[in-house]
Amino acid sequence: MSEAARLMDAAIRLSLRGLGRTAPNPNVGCLVVRNGRIVARGWTQPGGRPHAEMMALEAAGAAARGAELYVSLEPCAHVSPRGPACADLIVASGVSAVHIAMRDPDPRTDGQGAARLGSAGVAVTLGTGEAAARQAMAGFLSRIALGRPRITLKLAMSIDGRVSMPGGESQWITGPEARAHAHLQRALADVIVIGRGTLEADDPSLDVRLPGLEDRSPRPAVLSATLDAIPASAKFADRDPLLLASVDDLCGLAVNDVLVEGGAATASTLLAADLIDRMLVYRAPVVIGDGAPGAGRIGLERLADAHGRWRLAETRALGNDRLEVYARTR
Amino acid sequence: MSEAARLMDAAIRLSLRGLGRTAPNPNVGCLVVRNGRIVARGWTQPGGRPHAEMMALEAAGAAARGAELYVSLEPCAHVSPRGPACADLIVASGVSAVHIAMRDPDPRTDGQGAARLGSAGVAVTLGTGEAAARQAMAGFLSRIALGRPRITLKLAMSIDGRVSMPGGESQWITGPEARAHAHLQRALADVIVIGRGTLEADDPSLDVRLPGLEDRSPRPAVLSATLDAIPASAKFADRDPLLLASVDDLCGLAVNDVLVEGGAATASTLLAADLIDRMLVYRAPVVIGDGAPGAGRIGLERLADAHGRWRLAETRALGNDRLEVYARTR
Ligand SMILES: NC(=O)c1ccc[n+]([C@@H]2O[C@H](COP(=O)([O-])OP(=O)(O)OC[C@H]3O[C@@H](n4cnc5c(N)ncnc54)[C@H](OP(=O)(O)O)[C@@H]3O)[C@@H](O)[C@H]2O)c1
Ligand SMILES: NC(=O)c1ccc[n+]([C@@H]2O[C@H](COP(=O)([O-])OP(=O)(O)OC[C@H]3O[C@@H](n4cnc5c(N)ncnc54)[C@H](OP(=O)(O)O)[C@@H]3O)[C@@H](O)[C@H]2O)c1
Repeated sequence: MSEAARLMDAAIRLSLRGLGRTAPNPNVGCLVVRNGRIVARGWTQPGGRPHAEMMALEAAGAAARGAELYVSLEPCAHVSPRGPACADLIVASGVSAVHIAMRDPDPRTDGQGAARLGSAGVAVTLGTGEAAARQAMAGFLSRIALGRPRITLKLAMSIDGRVSMPGGESQWITGPEARAHAHLQRALADVIVIGRGTLEADDPSLDVRLPGLEDRSPRPAVLSATLDAIPASAKFADRDPLLLASVDDLCGLAVNDVLVEGGAATASTLLAADLIDRMLVYRAPVVIGDGAPGAGRIGLERLADAHGRWRLAETRALGNDRLEVYARTR
Repeated sequence: MSEAARLMDAAIRLSLRGLGRTAPNPNVGCLVVRNGRIVARGWTQPGGRPHAEMMALEAAGAAARGAELYVSLEPCAHVSPRGPACADLIVASGVSAVHIAMRDPDPRTDGQGAARLGSAGVAVTLGTGEAAARQAMAGFLSRIALGRPRITLKLAMSIDGRVSMPGGESQWITGPEARAHAHLQRALADVIVIGRGTLEADDPSLDVRLPGLEDRSPRPAVLSATLDAIPASAKFADRDPLLLASVDDLCGLAVNDVLVEGGAATASTLLAADLIDRMLVYRAPVVIGDGAPGAGRIGLERLADAHGRWRLAETRALGNDRLEVYARTR
C-alpha cells in the first residue's frame, strides 16, 4: 500500500464514526496531512453538519496552509443555509493538494467540487481507495442511485431456517457474541424497522445495549397499514418512533441506512418487492424442525428466478454461531 | 510433525481408500517402513478382507524383517474362517516395531493384539495420530460404541432452509461443485437411504456420477413401512436395493456408514430419534420463501433442548455454495 493509499484508508475508517447518524448527508472522513504527519482529523457530525472537511480544517487552523487533504468523498460545491461549500472553505484554507476517494454522485456537486478546487490552483487526485469508500458510504450511495435508503434485513436463524420454536419462543436462538454483533449493527443504522406483529408479540426495545454505545440507538419505526399511532406503551415510545403505513413510506425515509428486524411478514413483503440490499444472517448450530420460518411467500415462480440474486459477501464465526452476510447482486 | 507422526498420517490417509467398502470391518491403513523409506503399503480391501496388514506384509515380503509397521488400528488378535489374526502374521514376518494409532475397541481384540505383539518381543507404540484415526474410522467406531452405523444426513438447502420450491421443484438448488462433492460423499458411504416419498416423487439413481468412481455407488435402501418390495421399475433396482421397514432395520445394518438423502419425513424421524451423527448442509445463496422445509417436527419442546447438540465441524466454499458440516456433540 502506498503512503497515499494508507492515509486515504485512515480517512475512510474515520468516516465510519458517522455511520447511522449523518443522514441525510453522507458519512465522510477527512485528514489534514503535513510532511506525512496527520495534523488534524474530521468526520461528518451527527445530523450531517459540520461536514468532515470543516471539522478537520478548523482543527488544523493555520497548519492547513500548504498541507494536503485526504477526504473520502468529493468536497461539496453547494452553499446551504446550514453552512458554506466545503470546496470554498478548502480553497480559503490554503491547502495545496486534495486527494478524493470518490466523486460525489449528488447532482449538486458531481464533479463541480473538484473543478472548483482545480481552477483555484489546488492539486486534485481522484480515485484512491474508491472501492472502500463506496462500501463505507453504501447507504448514502443507495439513496442517490435508487432513491431510497439501503435496506438491511437481519435474521437470527437455525440451520434449517427457523426463527422461532413452534410455540413462538425465539429468545435466544443465537448466543451472546452474535447478539452483541447485531446490537453493533443497530448502532450503524439510522432507522430500525419492525412489523406490527413483532411489536405486539415481543414489544422489543430496539436499542443498543453495548457499553459506550447506549446513545447510538437508531430511531425506531413500525410498519403497519392499520395502526393509527404507535402505542404509548411501546418500550421505545420515548424515542420518537416512526409509523410507516406502507413500503413506500419506508423507501421515502430521508436516511442512509435502514435495518429491518422482522418478522416474517415484513421480511417477505420486502424480499418480494426486491427491496433488500443486504441480509445479515446469524446462524445458530441448532435444528428446530417445525418452527416459524424467517420468510414466507416472496413471489418466486421457478428456482431459476431465485438464483443469481445473492452473493455471500462475508462469513465468520461469532462464538458458537456464524454470521453470513449476503449482498444483493445488482 | 515428527517423522513417526508423518508416517502415521500417511497410513491413515491410505485407510480412507477403503471407506464405504470394508463393512463390516474397519477401514485400516498400513505402511512397512525400512530406514525411513516406505517399502510397502496396504489397506483393507472391499468386503473387509484381506486386512491392511496382510496386504502390506505380502507386498513387503522379505523386506518386512527388521522393518517398522505403521497401522491406523490395533492389529486383530482373532483368527476367523476368513483369515489368520494379523498380530500372528506380524510376529511371523519378523517386523521389529509396530506403531498403532489407536486401540481396537472391538472386544475380540481390545488390547490383545498389542499384547500378543509385545510378548513376542515386538516393540509397540500406541496413540500416534489417534484423533485422525478416529475420524477416518468414525463409522466403524460408531458401530462398536452405539451398536449402529454412523448416520449422515445430507441436505441441499437455501439460506432460509428450504429444500424445494412451493411446487416441489428442487433441481437444482446447489451448483455443480456442491453436487460433485455430494456425489463423492456417496462414494464414501456403504448404504444410501431415501424415504418412500422421495422414491415415488423423484425415482433417483443414487449412484456416483464422478469420472473414475462410477463403481463406488453405495447400496441403495428405501425406508418404508408399507412397501412389500422395491418396485422393479426403480432406477437403482439392479443394484440389490434394501427395503428397510423401520428405523430399527436401518440401525441394524451391518455397515459402517449410512448416508441419508431425504426427504423431510425421513430426516425428521431420524432427527427426532436422535440418530443423526453428522449433517452435510450444502447451502445455496438463494432465498426461496415458502418452499418445502428440510425437516418437519422433530419433537423439541423448548429452545434450550435444541442447543448444544450440534457443532459446526467444517465449512468451506464449493463454487457459489457453501458446505456446512455439523457433528453431533456426544
Ligand atoms: N427470531 C427472530 O429473529 C425474530 C425477529 C422478529 C420477529 N420474530 C417473531 O415474528 C413474529 C411476528 O412476525 P409476523 O410475520 O407475524 O409479523 P411482522 O412482520 O412483525 O408484522 C406483520 C405486520 O406488519 C405490517 N406490514 C407488513 N408488511 C406491510 C406492508 N407491505 N405495508 C404495510 N404494513 C405491512 C402489517 O401490519 P398491519 O396489519 O397493521 O397492516 C402486518 O400485519 C413474532 O412472533 C416475533 O416474535 C422473530
Ligand atoms: N432438495 C433435496 O435435497 C431433497 C432431497 C430428498 C427429497 N426431496 C423431496 O422431498 C419430497 C419427499 O419427502 P417426504 O418427506 O414426502 O418423503 P420421504 O421422507 O422421502 O418419505 C416418507 C416415507 O418414508 C417412510 N418413512 C419415514 N420414516 C419412517 C419410519 N420411521 N419408519 C418407516 N418408514 C418411514 C414412510 O414410508 P411409508 O409410508 O411407505 O411407510 C414415509 O411415508 C419429494 O418431493 C422430494 O423431491 C428433496
